[in-house]
Amino acid sequence: MKIKLATTAGFCFGVKRAVNLAVRATKDYPDQPIYTLGPIIHNPQVVENLEEKGIHPLDSPEDVDHGIIILRSHGVTRQELTQLNSNPAITVIDATCPFVRRAQEIVAQMKQENYQIIIVGEKHHPEVAGLISYGDPAHTLAISGPEEMPAEVIQHQEAPHKIALLAQTTQSYENFNSVAECLLPLKGETRCFNTICNATSDRQQESSAIATETDCMIIIGGFSSANTTRLYQLCKSIQPCSYHIEIPEQLQAKWFAGIQTVGVTAGASTPKWLIEKVIHKINNLS
Amino acid sequence: MKIKLATTAGFCFGVKRAVNLAVRATKDYPDQPIYTLGPIIHNPQVVENLEEKGIHPLDSPEDVDHGIIILRSHGVTRQELTQLNSNPAITVIDATCPFVRRAQEIVAQMKQENYQIIIVGEKHHPEVAGLISYGDPAHTLAISGPEEMPAEVIQHQEAPHKIALLAQTTQSYENFNSVAECLLPLKGETRCFNTICNATSDRQQESSAIATETDCMIIIGGFSSANTTRLYQLCKSIQPCSYHIEIPEQLQAKWFAGIQTVGVTAGASTPKWLIEKVIHKINNLS
Repeated sequence: MKIKLATTAGFCFGVKRAVNLAVRATKDYPDQPIYTLGPIIHNPQVVENLEEKGIHPLDSPEDVDHGIIILRSHGVTRQELTQLNSNPAITVIDATCPFVRRAQEIVAQMKQENYQIIIVGEKHHPEVAGLISYGDPAHTLAISGPEEMPAEVIQHQEAPHKIALLAQTTQSYENFNSVAECLLPLKGETRCFNTICNATSDRQQESSAIATETDCMIIIGGFSSANTTRLYQLCKSIQPCSYHIEIPEQLQAKWFAGIQTVGVTAGASTPKWLIEKVIHKINNLS
Repeated sequence: MKIKLATTAGFCFGVKRAVNLAVRATKDYPDQPIYTLGPIIHNPQVVENLEEKGIHPLDSPEDVDHGIIILRSHGVTRQELTQLNSNPAITVIDATCPFVRRAQEIVAQMKQENYQIIIVGEKHHPEVAGLISYGDPAHTLAISGPEEMPAEVIQHQEAPHKIALLAQTTQSYENFNSVAECLLPLKGETRCFNTICNATSDRQQESSAIATETDCMIIIGGFSSANTTRLYQLCKSIQPCSYHIEIPEQLQAKWFAGIQTVGVTAGASTPKWLIEKVIHKINNLS
């Protein structure tokens, strides 16, 4: 039996990179204390695994005076980074997702070019707090959707205006577009940066393609995970022999009777080791 | 009887300015031949009036070797301007509408910053030909709407893309927005410049407001003029006593019987002298 694993299964590029950097730090700096500023990714099992390797999450840069500090995948504020860099006893390893980093650089550049900056995202999410910190506080704001657009921005009559628009990397395009639609009618310039990371839509697209080419689909991820459930429903609509599992023990030998090819995919919160365990078990069952 | 004239009636700012510059040229340069490159505005009566003052329209910069040349309100190409400026026997008076000039400057700036430039407009209109001439031919294109968007722009996969979008000053916002909606989903930057001049929408808005405050509305402009006809329909829907006329002789005394206030507006192609003649006649009738 042939197994076809989706390249987009499980952790996205930014999450994988952050975890790899953390693991590498334990090898590169075996004699130093290693910390992450906040949990490195939003997955407790992974954070727990890293704690076992000696990597401890911190709440604030002030909680430590020396050692290795890994910046989490969704980035930190400019002020936190400055504080960390100002201490020569601290070595910073930047695990900020490159897509988030690019968005931070756009905010910094737009501040330099005197744009009013609008970020579509969750105001209190660490990624958005990080983005805001790169702007001028008087001309940078985060809104969760068009309904939060301040009247003074829309009613600003001194033409031409200069507005830069970007998004938290995990925002939906529809929401980003709704905010853009409030700004485009205004005379002047609306500089739109589509900074949305398409990991989820790419994963759905690849999994659908695999579902059309295989005789059975295994979708790995928490039963309460919304993105995994959507992925399962999508595969099931294409390939009726689709199964949603959390752990390898849930696989059933009868699913693979008479099957030539199996497709495997996983939600964004599923670690690689779990995917590998599932593949190993499928091989044993066939 | 009180007459309330719309400040936005008749020629827009750019057209007024162009005609004023032409008339002033006849005073400033009484001994030199004066030309306009193409008709200075799209109104034959005005062009005819200027010809009587000794201002002659030219088809090409090559048709003349000395004198005063007035650049028309919707602008000329960069090449035509260079050719005119290279002849020391020619004095150029730039009557390009400042809104068109600003759009030309945006194209030149976006060329310098290496953007793919997309202009929403009529490819063969002199204004659009002028705009295109300020861009790099390989990376500047005009499309009349989203259906003309080249596949290679939309399917371009090398992120991040850099696209600058602007519009012919007389385009409809809806069309401009439809093109923007093709570009915003793409990863990268879509730099939108809303270069649409709002003379028409401003005129409709002001005329509607006057129609609600007066007992009768007079709308002046050609019966075949689309924008004047739209203006008349709009006023009529608010004030049933609305009348569309071309010349003062069409006014009827009975329209003003028992009327306290009269509103007056005019389409974009109606010269000021005609509006003044109408106002004079209304005063005589009341």
